[in-house]
Amino acid sequence: MTTIDNASLVTWRRQFHRYPETGWGEFYTTATLIKILEEMGHHVLTGEQIINPDFIRGRNPSIVEKAKHAAKERGVDDALLERIGDYTGCAAIFDTGRPGPTIAFRFDIDCVNVQETDTAEHIPNQEGFNSTNQGYMHACGHDGHMAIGLGVAKWLMENKNSSLKGVIKLIFQPAEEGVRGAKPIAESGILDDVDYFACGHLGCDIPSGVIVAAPERYLSTLKMDLRFKGKAAHAGMEPHAGKNALLAACNATIQILSLPTHGEGMTRANVGVLNAGEGRNVIPSYAQMQIEVRGENEKINNYMTEEALRRARGVALSFDVELETEVMGEAVDFIPDDEMTDYITEVAQTIPAVKKVQRTMNFNGSDDATLLIKRVQAHGGKAAYFVIGSDIKAGHHQAKFDIDEEQLFTGFSIFTGLLQRLSV
Amino acid sequence: MTTIDNASLVTWRRQFHRYPETGWGEFYTTATLIKILEEMGHHVLTGEQIINPDFIRGRNPSIVEKAKHAAKERGVDDALLERIGDYTGCAAIFDTGRPGPTIAFRFDIDCVNVQETDTAEHIPNQEGFNSTNQGYMHACGHDGHMAIGLGVAKWLMENKNSSLKGVIKLIFQPAEEGVRGAKPIAESGILDDVDYFACGHLGCDIPSGVIVAAPERYLSTLKMDLRFKGKAAHAGMEPHAGKNALLAACNATIQILSLPTHGEGMTRANVGVLNAGEGRNVIPSYAQMQIEVRGENEKINNYMTEEALRRARGVALSFDVELETEVMGEAVDFIPDDEMTDYITEVAQTIPAVKKVQRTMNFNGSDDATLLIKRVQAHGGKAAYFVIGSDIKAGHHQAKFDIDEEQLFTGFSIFTGLLQRLSV
Amino acid sequence: MTTIDNASLVTWRRQFHRYPETGWGEFYTTATLIKILEEMGHHVLTGEQIINPDFIRGRNPSIVEKAKHAAKERGVDDALLERIGDYTGCAAIFDTGRPGPTIAFRFDIDCVNVQETDTAEHIPNQEGFNSTNQGYMHACGHDGHMAIGLGVAKWLMENKNSSLKGVIKLIFQPAEEGVRGAKPIAESGILDDVDYFACGHLGCDIPSGVIVAAPERYLSTLKMDLRFKGKAAHAGMEPHAGKNALLAACNATIQILSLPTHGEGMTRANVGVLNAGEGRNVIPSYAQMQIEVRGENEKINNYMTEEALRRARGVALSFDVELETEVMGEAVDFIPDDEMTDYITEVAQTIPAVKKVQRTMNFNGSDDATLLIKRVQAHGGKAAYFVIGSDIKAGHHQAKFDIDEEQLFTGFSIFTGLLQRLSV
Amino acid sequence: MTTIDNASLVTWRRQFHRYPETGWGEFYTTATLIKILEEMGHHVLTGEQIINPDFIRGRNPSIVEKAKHAAKERGVDDALLERIGDYTGCAAIFDTGRPGPTIAFRFDIDCVNVQETDTAEHIPNQEGFNSTNQGYMHACGHDGHMAIGLGVAKWLMENKNSSLKGVIKLIFQPAEEGVRGAKPIAESGILDDVDYFACGHLGCDIPSGVIVAAPERYLSTLKMDLRFKGKAAHAGMEPHAGKNALLAACNATIQILSLPTHGEGMTRANVGVLNAGEGRNVIPSYAQMQIEVRGENEKINNYMTEEALRRARGVALSFDVELETEVMGEAVDFIPDDEMTDYITEVAQTIPAVKKVQRTMNFNGSDDATLLIKRVQAHGGKAAYFVIGSDIKAGHHQAKFDIDEEQLFTGFSIFTGLLQRLSV
Repeated sequence: MTTIDNASLVTWRRQFHRYPETGWGEFYTTATLIKILEEMGHHVLTGEQIINPDFIRGRNPSIVEKAKHAAKERGVDDALLERIGDYTGCAAIFDTGRPGPTIAFRFDIDCVNVQETDTAEHIPNQEGFNSTNQGYMHACGHDGHMAIGLGVAKWLMENKNSSLKGVIKLIFQPAEEGVRGAKPIAESGILDDVDYFACGHLGCDIPSGVIVAAPERYLSTLKMDLRFKGKAAHAGMEPHAGKNALLAACNATIQILSLPTHGEGMTRANVGVLNAGEGRNVIPSYAQMQIEVRGENEKINNYMTEEALRRARGVALSFDVELETEVMGEAVDFIPDDEMTDYITEVAQTIPAVKKVQRTMNFNGSDDATLLIKRVQAHGGKAAYFVIGSDIKAGHHQAKFDIDEEQLFTGFSIFTGLLQRLSV
Repeated sequence: MTTIDNASLVTWRRQFHRYPETGWGEFYTTATLIKILEEMGHHVLTGEQIINPDFIRGRNPSIVEKAKHAAKERGVDDALLERIGDYTGCAAIFDTGRPGPTIAFRFDIDCVNVQETDTAEHIPNQEGFNSTNQGYMHACGHDGHMAIGLGVAKWLMENKNSSLKGVIKLIFQPAEEGVRGAKPIAESGILDDVDYFACGHLGCDIPSGVIVAAPERYLSTLKMDLRFKGKAAHAGMEPHAGKNALLAACNATIQILSLPTHGEGMTRANVGVLNAGEGRNVIPSYAQMQIEVRGENEKINNYMTEEALRRARGVALSFDVELETEVMGEAVDFIPDDEMTDYITEVAQTIPAVKKVQRTMNFNGSDDATLLIKRVQAHGGKAAYFVIGSDIKAGHHQAKFDIDEEQLFTGFSIFTGLLQRLSV
Repeated sequence: MTTIDNASLVTWRRQFHRYPETGWGEFYTTATLIKILEEMGHHVLTGEQIINPDFIRGRNPSIVEKAKHAAKERGVDDALLERIGDYTGCAAIFDTGRPGPTIAFRFDIDCVNVQETDTAEHIPNQEGFNSTNQGYMHACGHDGHMAIGLGVAKWLMENKNSSLKGVIKLIFQPAEEGVRGAKPIAESGILDDVDYFACGHLGCDIPSGVIVAAPERYLSTLKMDLRFKGKAAHAGMEPHAGKNALLAACNATIQILSLPTHGEGMTRANVGVLNAGEGRNVIPSYAQMQIEVRGENEKINNYMTEEALRRARGVALSFDVELETEVMGEAVDFIPDDEMTDYITEVAQTIPAVKKVQRTMNFNGSDDATLLIKRVQAHGGKAAYFVIGSDIKAGHHQAKFDIDEEQLFTGFSIFTGLLQRLSV
Repeated sequence: MTTIDNASLVTWRRQFHRYPETGWGEFYTTATLIKILEEMGHHVLTGEQIINPDFIRGRNPSIVEKAKHAAKERGVDDALLERIGDYTGCAAIFDTGRPGPTIAFRFDIDCVNVQETDTAEHIPNQEGFNSTNQGYMHACGHDGHMAIGLGVAKWLMENKNSSLKGVIKLIFQPAEEGVRGAKPIAESGILDDVDYFACGHLGCDIPSGVIVAAPERYLSTLKMDLRFKGKAAHAGMEPHAGKNALLAACNATIQILSLPTHGEGMTRANVGVLNAGEGRNVIPSYAQMQIEVRGENEKINNYMTEEALRRARGVALSFDVELETEVMGEAVDFIPDDEMTDYITEVAQTIPAVKKVQRTMNFNGSDDATLLIKRVQAHGGKAAYFVIGSDIKAGHHQAKFDIDEEQLFTGFSIFTGLLQRLSV
């Protein structure tokens, strides 16, 4: 029994779409979530209650400060900002008061660094809910994920006197893009008592009406920044006096991209960004690289990581430059638990909007929910990650991306259906 | 006979030091020069009167617009700005009215992109004439060059009824840094009737009291921007679908920096700046490189230029990316005319502050005055480039650079001394 | 009914092991096979009867001449050598005289360029059948394949009056190493009427007693030689006058090894051999590279081939050197026909020495039998490639490689078992 | 007074031309020299009497063994071979018995690895004294140097009762090509008492009739072999298991060739030879590189050497391969002593065949005589290296190289003229 319908989910989704925030800067978003959840009557944790600061990755302090400031300007009161502190995200902890399993769902809350299209046919433009945060956009569906999460939260309150048992934890995770936010949540221990864990993703090139119960080939990945520091010199007068960090970075790029593939499974390596040098006639004294490696499993990913670092160290020696490395994000592969896959399949088959339940697909990408799943499985819990098919207007992370809002209710129905089966 | 003393030169120099402007953005500086020169009674040309727009190099329109706007905000009136138009720099044309040779002197007016030091012992800080234009600084002595040029202009007016003959042209050249501004001045034709040409440079690691009459080894150089355009793709899901512009740029860097040296003389190549890529997990679709090559003479420089471009084109083919190249600046080598060298030597020996006149030194750098010189020599004129020794507090282009202001009068004395010998 | 036992197979195998010959040089081996087969009473084709010379790959004329000469010295008579002509390999065509299917089996006959170990525990040393051809060794099991093939040939003669129907073709293929010999056999048309095709391989890291009926992931591959021709120059006196082929090859290596992986499946690239340069103080004028690419399927292999060639062409442009490319070998992937897989499974299960029949494995390598299979399948035939497990003493192509000779009879039993099912 | 005329020098030169031997393999040549010198009556040192084995460079034991064997086959008796021992070269020590200065001349005796042309117009072919040692040729004029040396030796004997004073040492040095043989001679101490040292070179692009008394810009150079040892692996099945020495060598090449030039003078770097890899489908486990660096002076050469080694070590770290380095040869720059230059000038001016004495030229190459000179100068001696102009038919080290035999007598005249001035 619920008052939630698709329209309520759409309203929330559009509210979040209007003001997207990038990873670790979701202060306005977090404040909005907390206010809505607490108005519903939920007990909400935030900041260091769910984040272990020792495992923070890929957090840019200047972005955090700007985002905090913007949140304040948008009316978030000081007390709430202070409560959130330095780390975004929150979790509603719903205790039924009856003995039973502990269940956790993960909803991610950050946006991507994409400028939303201004074309007229783009529905957010037509309906007036396009991004008002210049250069940022919910172009990966996390606005929809949050809407579904709030729907589930509302449903829990509406059904708190039903036969639900145990504890339900709704995790609103920051910084999924760049696979940065899950690690410190996992390391906070908040999932260590979880028996069942699930999360879902809208879109993923699966059409509306289809649910994929247990995608495979989530790639293990490590995201790193490499920084080379050399010594500037006048390129005409004393080129020999410089230590060329740009040339080091080019050699590191070439060496990392020529890492051998692995006989046991798929590998990837990318140098996505390279910025180096202070001026045309100066031997460049610094270079910054954003790189990532991936592997079909954790072993292969570790191989890629170690070899990439070995190349970087060798290059630093070659060019007599200093090397700094910083882990910026990570995710692992995982093996879905058949029990959870079966539950999702059964639940999905009862939903009228679902035309087809597909057992698996190649995900071929990474999501740091896998780190939460790994933590849950390590403590004996069962976990699932399913895809909620949704026709999309353009690929994920593109300026014309838009979800099929009808599928918000499909997602909501799977999560609440799972609760009806598991929370007993 | 002159009222000019070192104090007047120092006043001008400090005025310019206080508001440095970068190449092609010297609107406030140009307006100031024009006002002072016209108050003295000079006939002043500016904008397209001395600049051939077809040969403009390394001019960033957004910097130009900002600089124009800033000049307006600093009180330059609209009429003057309109007269200057899009191109900075000016020239005072002094016609004695008596038949005689045409003589031209070059003074450069732009600054470098360096943030001036805030240390207390830095004299501009002590005396309150430090740069007020954040991120820019006269750290190459061009403020002093302008002061000397104004001194010469004043001296001309004071001596207009003397025995001076012919026409004297004082060229205040924009955008010497990056060797950009001389080419369009040369191509304007304004120097084509010049019989004698001279310019001087303060500092250059030569101590106060020493004059170098005819430095050698001005390097020919070409400055280019290379831009590669590829195709973005998700680095995990479809790496094969991308065309990697960053990797192309790294290979171009490696290929250009491994250009063979030349058996007939010195070569240089530098990739000073490289920026590429839109995000860590995207096959990078663009890359921008700022490069320069140099050669001991024009032939060797042309060899380096052609080979560097060949490497860039090969890389574009290898990685199936588009290549755009843009010439951003250039300078050539030159052979001083003995006649001019002798005049400078004789004049310098008569100046009390000059302790030593040294015939030559290795300049080992580039100045686009060489393009003006080449033009003058091609039309049968004689040319010289001399160094006015000045103790400096730090190397050229460094934050603590400062000249010995006493040497402004030395520079002034050489130019006016030359006029007394040549303009007869 | 047969007189063939394992001992007869071992005798043949040891005979071939004693004198291994490299691809396209198997003159003594071919002559031996022809003599034995004709003594049995077989009709044997050789040379251009089974080879289409237009599709010859990776054949080194000087190796061919040396091998021919050696065969003559070892007593092969001129008439037989003339009959073989320029191209090694042969085929026994056995016509039962009764209408029925056409069946073909492939046995490969060349060795690898490895010097056999001289350690005492190596059985060929103990038993005195080690290689007498310096630098060459049957270290891939082809000696065993030939022994099995001769066993099958003998069995056919012994059973020619039985119920066997149709035509049986036993193909003794040259130059499998480097995947060179199958293409010209396929293009000779000799397999175009084949209804059933099979071949098997000993070893492949599968233990004795196990048969793998239908291995998967045969990689498509292309083997190429790249040759760069530049211009020599004295590296001290006029480095600029050279065109550096060695540097071109190094850049080609780096570019080819950094080819992006493919989102749809496995890729490989290798530069296995690089020889370049005429002397320490000379700008190198030539470079030779032996490369190979692989892909999980033909499309991916073609992608790798095209991109590798694009890189090589780009490098040739960059360094102003000439590029020659030559295809040296190729193989494709294939999909086993279930009907054949089932037959092999059933036959294998009846063989006492077989403890386990495994349906599949990842082959992860290449064999140009796939080109024969592709030709057969294109004409409507069914094909299989199975693995005959054999404990080995060291990996394939290693100096201590040795097969478990007991498994020769297992291989023989599968082929003859297949004939009993198919030739009916 | 002498019986030596040009014809006697030509006879010797042709004798040596007929059987050229490569560096450290000049056993037949050394034996011939010793026999001729001893027949004249000279006291001759050889082997370890003039070679310090601790400083041997670039000596290939298998070439040495073959050359020794060949010398024996050509009739050199065992006693003489034993006396020479492992190290070729010899020195005639001529003691006048009268007090006076010690004077040393250097003549180099090795050939280059070039196959002499077989064209009819090549004089050695016409006159029947072409090389009979396949693949080797006196294509650098050392045959002429030896002839001159023997002429001087003969002249000494003919003039032993004249007014000559002091000691004269005629050094016949092995392995000048690759700048290998001088170091161990210098380190033997045989030159430590030398007051005047001279050597000359025929050709060098200076025409017949011209003597260059004191060429400049002898480049300092270091010749090194780099060897990388990695680990082989099957490139298809387990590429990750290899350690790619070929890829390491390619990266080392690229890094070494992109060494920055030096602000204070000329630099060179070359990778002249690269051989790597065992087979197309194997991750290459070894690579061998022949490299050299040069610098305008010893400081710059040391900079190049250190930076090249740093690059090599960095690459070894990057690719987890072992690095072996071996110094194969070296030479330094030098400053001629004016006193010696003047003597040579004066002597040359008295020789009828000399049309012009030129003071200097850019040598732009390397000769390890500079190491002998350095040793002499370090002990207070004076040294010179002059060029004996000779029209040549093709550049040094080329198959059609041939000297103008008339100039042998010119060379002889300078050396003997020097003795008449110095040995007094």
